[in-house]
Amino acid sequence: MKSIDLSAIKTPADIRRMDEKQLKDLAAAMRKALLEKLSAHGGHVGPNLGMIEAIIALHHVFNTPEDKIVFDVSHQTYPHKMLTGRMQAFTDPAHYDDVTGYTNPQESDYDLFSLGHTSSAVSLASGLAKARDLKGGRENVIAVIGDGSLSGGVAFEGLDYGATLGTNFIVVVNDNDMSIAENHGGIYDGLRLLRETDGTAEYNLFRAMGFDYRYVHNGNDIPSLVDMFRSVKDINHPVVVHINTMKGMGLPVAEADKEKFHFSAPFDLKTGEPYSSSDAPEGYEDLFANQVLARMKEVPELVVVNAGTPDAIGFTPERRKEAGCQFVDVGIAEQQAVAMASGLAKGGARPVVALASTFLQRAYDQFSQDIALNYQPATFVVFYGSIFGINDETHLGFFDLGLLSNIPDLLVLTPTCKEEFLAMLRWSEDQHKRPVVIRVPGGAVRSDSNIGILDDYSCPSYEIVRKGSRIALIGAGTFLPAMQQTAEHLASKGLDPMVINPREVSVLDTACLDAIKDFDLVITAEDGIIDGGFGQKIASYYGDAAVKVINLGLQKKFLNRYNAVEVLKECNLTPDGIADMVVSA
Amino acid sequence: MKSIDLSAIKTPADIRRMDEKQLKDLAAAMRKALLEKLSAHGGHVGPNLGMIEAIIALHHVFNTPEDKIVFDVSHQTYPHKMLTGRMQAFTDPAHYDDVTGYTNPQESDYDLFSLGHTSSAVSLASGLAKARDLKGGRENVIAVIGDGSLSGGVAFEGLDYGATLGTNFIVVVNDNDMSIAENHGGIYDGLRLLRETDGTAEYNLFRAMGFDYRYVHNGNDIPSLVDMFRSVKDINHPVVVHINTMKGMGLPVAEADKEKFHFSAPFDLKTGEPYSSSDAPEGYEDLFANQVLARMKEVPELVVVNAGTPDAIGFTPERRKEAGCQFVDVGIAEQQAVAMASGLAKGGARPVVALASTFLQRAYDQFSQDIALNYQPATFVVFYGSIFGINDETHLGFFDLGLLSNIPDLLVLTPTCKEEFLAMLRWSEDQHKRPVVIRVPGGAVRSDSNIGILDDYSCPSYEIVRKGSRIALIGAGTFLPAMQQTAEHLASKGLDPMVINPREVSVLDTACLDAIKDFDLVITAEDGIIDGGFGQKIASYYGDAAVKVINLGLQKKFLNRYNAVEVLKECNLTPDGIADMVVSA
Repeated sequence: MKSIDLSAIKTPADIRRMDEKQLKDLAAAMRKALLEKLSAHGGHVGPNLGMIEAIIALHHVFNTPEDKIVFDVSHQTYPHKMLTGRMQAFTDPAHYDDVTGYTNPQESDYDLFSLGHTSSAVSLASGLAKARDLKGGRENVIAVIGDGSLSGGVAFEGLDYGATLGTNFIVVVNDNDMSIAENHGGIYDGLRLLRETDGTAEYNLFRAMGFDYRYVHNGNDIPSLVDMFRSVKDINHPVVVHINTMKGMGLPVAEADKEKFHFSAPFDLKTGEPYSSSDAPEGYEDLFANQVLARMKEVPELVVVNAGTPDAIGFTPERRKEAGCQFVDVGIAEQQAVAMASGLAKGGARPVVALASTFLQRAYDQFSQDIALNYQPATFVVFYGSIFGINDETHLGFFDLGLLSNIPDLLVLTPTCKEEFLAMLRWSEDQHKRPVVIRVPGGAVRSDSNIGILDDYSCPSYEIVRKGSRIALIGAGTFLPAMQQTAEHLASKGLDPMVINPREVSVLDTACLDAIKDFDLVITAEDGIIDGGFGQKIASYYGDAAVKVINLGLQKKFLNRYNAVEVLKECNLTPDGIADMVVSA
Repeated sequence: MKSIDLSAIKTPADIRRMDEKQLKDLAAAMRKALLEKLSAHGGHVGPNLGMIEAIIALHHVFNTPEDKIVFDVSHQTYPHKMLTGRMQAFTDPAHYDDVTGYTNPQESDYDLFSLGHTSSAVSLASGLAKARDLKGGRENVIAVIGDGSLSGGVAFEGLDYGATLGTNFIVVVNDNDMSIAENHGGIYDGLRLLRETDGTAEYNLFRAMGFDYRYVHNGNDIPSLVDMFRSVKDINHPVVVHINTMKGMGLPVAEADKEKFHFSAPFDLKTGEPYSSSDAPEGYEDLFANQVLARMKEVPELVVVNAGTPDAIGFTPERRKEAGCQFVDVGIAEQQAVAMASGLAKGGARPVVALASTFLQRAYDQFSQDIALNYQPATFVVFYGSIFGINDETHLGFFDLGLLSNIPDLLVLTPTCKEEFLAMLRWSEDQHKRPVVIRVPGGAVRSDSNIGILDDYSCPSYEIVRKGSRIALIGAGTFLPAMQQTAEHLASKGLDPMVINPREVSVLDTACLDAIKDFDLVITAEDGIIDGGFGQKIASYYGDAAVKVINLGLQKKFLNRYNAVEVLKECNLTPDGIADMVVSA
């Protein structure tokens, strides 16, 4: 095998003239480079290893960037980036961080959208196809979507519309029989049957939705893929090309444990063991899972619902097994998770829905209509809703706070430490009255044995954690400790600020606010954008009072790969920054 | 035919002993009563006339309310209400308004949820079924969903999960080959094939999703329905019962023009002509449709996108024909409409997406991720976003303002009259830079030839429509006129208030706000809830200034069948109320 010089590949044009042998060598060289980078740097392991051949075949056959490819979720696009002018970011450790983990139009014209939430690629591509038709263009439009992403409602909406385009529209379904964890949903039996029958099974979701259909048995075999893509290139109607790939291909430990290697921190290439210590400190997800698992044993109708990210909420494979039928993973389908919770509560079960902040926004209508309007007693636990959450622009976790707390009748609690989180969770699990959202604090788990625990969190009840005068510092959730530290700074300067833990951000404790109405200054801090948030409610409440109000929080901006500490400094969300502000106010 | 005494029917138990003949007579009597009420009172005509037989058969066969039926969208439940203790509301004109137009748990234990948005019934019912299984129950759980609602993503998510329940779960698909308007989507060819083959066609969406499947050719034939429902009663696995009904059955004009009679104001039973004058004043939807239709002829890549409510945005069948391929109805699929718009814009088309306020909230994630994060130049026109919108608790239109304006980079414009609306629309159609939301004012169309028109609305630029001092009245959108009237009241009392049209609500015009920072009082008014809205941004901005701020708007509450005038009085959103507030401030 003549080794391939990866650095010579600057654009896809460089691989269009390659023969089969060269393409295979290219795949081998790319896999080797990817394994090196992934093991040293971490990232989405399984999705990228599985898609090397398909992405090579796509760029080999189609005339990108004139032909347009939209990658769903786009965490599988490392091979695409390697072929489109960004090879160095995968071969030279000094440049590993030059690229983001998702497609990004600011990096390359070959990247059409910045996207990281799943299931939207078919819809986005359908718009490209319709635009092409309006303008009389002739390019191919291709959406690449994984089987795991198919369970999201917008994917179905996109397929349903896309099938009616009547013109060139190619949907490549990358089926590796996995979501992040195992798949859940009725469509997966159908996909399995298609795989087992080489695409000939009678019940075919894609044909039933109006698509032409083709199947590639070995989605990691470049000649098969090239032949198939050539056969559908310039096709004059919508077609699904269903390819069966192997997630994690080429890394035995990832082929064997697909969930563990969906995403991984740096690891030893030989053993698959992560370099970082395995005795990581307990996270809120562990606290959550352990408490509800224990409670499940006493309450058979307690049920945890998640949408395709079980590990991220502490439900490892072992804990899922332990929970049995009291754990439901609906697949990537947040709308289903939230609406189903309404039905569960109405039916007398006790649903606890755990979701990541960035994804729960897909279920806004269900929070509003099915949960709040129907006032169903379900508990929602929001993970990664914080500046300390995921820092990719596609996965930000600081918009949920205003989003949920402006829905009528939804009680949004903001615990500040593990004792308060667990107390609120226990209270909400056991109450049968109302919908409750509990927003997990950001950052490392924090213990505060002095925090005031209530028997009932249903009425607004701000806790004065430090008595004081003239100045009140109200720190919601994550930022109560910063307010406590600020108070210490100020106390050393002879001031005597009050510090308040509001406990909740959806309804004001007007009695408490009235009692401090003659203060000089109230400062609020929240772990979310200021616009539409908690602090602005207080500013509005005090609008005709003499007390000055300063709202601290994040700016209404999409940040990308930010450094949380720097962002907090810029927003004056540090004890020093807040103290300076008080002194100069 | 022995006539049926409808008033004797108090609960479904009263129809369980009836024989076929009696059930048919019951259907005839119910249809007669419904036609009388619908023609005199208005309401959802077609959906209810089509479902009389199926609802009779359901309550005849199943042991409601122990067996549980969830009706999707629930505007087809008049027959259900007639059979469940609310007959008088359909036979006695004095009681016509005793019931709402949707299922409502406060009315009856037979109504499980308050719901009016489509596509969620399968998800809700899946929760009921799972709760039953956790509790060891044995009742039947039935979801009833129309073909039009199937295109919504949450319906697919619900089917995908529901298929995996492994226990009793019955989904009745009421297929009348219509949404509100005609259906759009690839699934509808498949449904048609199933109808044409008596349910035997090879490509079967429901089987492909993992359901058992049954078909009823005549969904308005009680014996067929009763036989089928008996055959699936107590079934031990998920099954779809696909029934073919006729929308509008029994009213020839409604059978012939299904779109017109989906919902109707009072009409003449014989001719189908509405009683109200047909030369209704021009609405914003007409202004919108006429302007974009004219522009389409000059700009072939201009395309209007809607999600299943074309008539509500002015695109009558005639105008849809005129627009041709430049009008896209994606079916009930708001996520698709918004994500597709991102693809359209990226592909060089000029998308104008028109949606109703209450439904657009289903696409929050697409507004955030696909549109705003990707900064695509699409125009969104929001209809019925107002206290003067739809007044059913399930269709409220006063939550969108904060929802959209707190998304980064989304410019939300609030025109105050037709001249400003059309100017903003024209500007946005022609700009290629950024995503823009234009919120149609509430109430009757208003003309104001003095309003200041801009060439470019991209930068915050508040318009001072009345010069003044000490007091500023900022009225967004619908409420600018109220502020102008307030100013006249106050002027007559010797005060000299400034009146401001902010033009937009997503970004503050800080130069303007700074210029009036030494005023005594600023009052804001917006046509939406105060929480998370425009006024609170101003209160926060002025938090450390001496100027007092009063935010006016709606309370964060679900209202039901409210009287807008009364609500405005309660919220002090009348010129008198505002003037009194100024005087006493």
